[in-house]
Amino acid sequence: MTDLAIRFDDIQAAAGRLAGQTLKTPVRQSRQADERTGAQLFFKCENFQRMGAFKFRGAYNALAQFAPEQRKAGVIAFSSGNHAQAIALSGRLLGIPSVIVMPKDAPPAKLAATRGYQQGQKGSEVVLYDRYTEDREAIGQRIARERGMTLIPPYDHPHVMAGQGTAALELIKETGPLDALLVCVGGGGLISGCAVAAVHLAPGIAVHGVEPEAGNDTQQSLAAGRIVRIETPKTIADGAQTQASGQLTFPVIQRHVKSILTVSDTQLVATMRFFAERMKMVVEPTGCLAAAAVLEGAIDLRGQRVGIIVSGGNVDLPAYAGMIGG
Amino acid sequence: MTDLAIRFDDIQAAAGRLAGQTLKTPVRQSRQADERTGAQLFFKCENFQRMGAFKFRGAYNALAQFAPEQRKAGVIAFSSGNHAQAIALSGRLLGIPSVIVMPKDAPPAKLAATRGYQQGQKGSEVVLYDRYTEDREAIGQRIARERGMTLIPPYDHPHVMAGQGTAALELIKETGPLDALLVCVGGGGLISGCAVAAVHLAPGIAVHGVEPEAGNDTQQSLAAGRIVRIETPKTIADGAQTQASGQLTFPVIQRHVKSILTVSDTQLVATMRFFAERMKMVVEPTGCLAAAAVLEGAIDLRGQRVGIIVSGGNVDLPAYAGMIGG
Repeated sequence: MTDLAIRFDDIQAAAGRLAGQTLKTPVRQSRQADERTGAQLFFKCENFQRMGAFKFRGAYNALAQFAPEQRKAGVIAFSSGNHAQAIALSGRLLGIPSVIVMPKDAPPAKLAATRGYQQGQKGSEVVLYDRYTEDREAIGQRIARERGMTLIPPYDHPHVMAGQGTAALELIKETGPLDALLVCVGGGGLISGCAVAAVHLAPGIAVHGVEPEAGNDTQQSLAAGRIVRIETPKTIADGAQTQASGQLTFPVIQRHVKSILTVSDTQLVATMRFFAERMKMVVEPTGCLAAAAVLEGAIDLRGQRVGIIVSGGNVDLPAYAGMIGG
Repeated sequence: MTDLAIRFDDIQAAAGRLAGQTLKTPVRQSRQADERTGAQLFFKCENFQRMGAFKFRGAYNALAQFAPEQRKAGVIAFSSGNHAQAIALSGRLLGIPSVIVMPKDAPPAKLAATRGYQQGQKGSEVVLYDRYTEDREAIGQRIARERGMTLIPPYDHPHVMAGQGTAALELIKETGPLDALLVCVGGGGLISGCAVAAVHLAPGIAVHGVEPEAGNDTQQSLAAGRIVRIETPKTIADGAQTQASGQLTFPVIQRHVKSILTVSDTQLVATMRFFAERMKMVVEPTGCLAAAAVLEGAIDLRGQRVGIIVSGGNVDLPAYAGMIGG
């Protein structure tokens, strides 16, 4: 039995670093959701987290542990999504320059937000690449080498994983013991951190991951007993369009996650509507994965106390309006 | 100087009755909103209240004070909006039958929600009327007389006003002293209760009401020194489409409210978008009135600590999608 990349102590230490930087997001309940599922559901609202997603937890936890020379040289990340903004904002708060490698055709709102965090910070910039002709990893590694920058990947890093685990730590400290915890799965950063926190704080808890139907690489990997890589899946859950779990996250999932469930895009849209109509919250498609599994009947948790991580709320308004209004 | 309909003690007593029935809704902050306005804003999120609006506070406070014979005979209300649902839900919780007089062409979602609360409760029903040919007040009064039911109006009632005031009570107990409080104004139930709570808890606070530009009856009334009645205004803020302040609410507004501001429908839409994009919240147009006044520059509150009542989040999804996505 090999050692896992993170232990509960790492998550507690992360919580200490994040204190005063992250928000202690609310845990909400919904009578309608409870009636519909027969369970008692506790929604941990990371859509209300700074920059609108849990990603800020892991990024800040990683950057806060940089050595002085790393701080000076800066951080590099490649991402078109929430990780980019999380790194840029953490870098700004900690005085660490950031280079974010983003595709030329990334949503203008995300480009603007990332540049907004970097504004006026010497050494910080967005580097654009063409996703059809250029290799972002090669670009990232060249810049990292040339400028001596530290690369922080979006999920496969112990400090990132430990930071994300503070979401479940906060949740269970507030609710007390839970019977089950549902977490969305992309590369596995959030679920690995949350699972380590959950099994420590609530022994006997069943942690379930939830993937989009079209992108069930982790479900396949668990069945195969090794990391299975798939084609980039077509799904509205853009935060879960990963091709494979990480080398560090997968062993944690194998050890601590009971099952991986899947939901369809149609079920994600129904759940976005539920959140908007009943709970008055904007949740991005990826953020609906965990809730959709129980609300749309992928799992029966009748009679149980269930934690649900609502991972984020960053979605372009016109796209969001199209999905909930359609 | 005549006595006002409510005193601070009434609001405290209401808070006692509501304990365990209403939610203590979160008070949220937004760095972006603070940067934009130069103020420190505290949003009291009544869109997360039971049934999606502050109206439940006043309705429950009124019904909880029914004498035994009133309880038995039941309650009647006419409303096509949040008040109807608030009365039906309170009646259900307290075992008081409710008759709600609603227009035939009320939004199906609101009809269904109201009937949902009444389901299986003997003596409870929705009575439909034609808003073009029938007089809802005459219908309501006839049923009240025939069945011995107590009519609870949506705002002009001391118990309703006191119940609504618990929103500001909770807010200021959580934030501590505030320099200003912004509250939307329809018939004046919310602002009268909130103003009485605010001036007691934070002496020197400036309470400002906010009306839709097209429906500034209360602004006109304050200027005239008497209740001015206007035509039903055309505005997306359907909760503020009242023609006049109440006989009981207006004297409270005269005594305790510093000014009435107005915002346009365009500014309401911009504020709905701000809430969705930045704070990940669904807020109905009426619920945006108070926030719009400061976010859209109707008042300059630079350097001040400002409470903002976000009054509700009940809006049909297709209409909402049209407004934020357009």
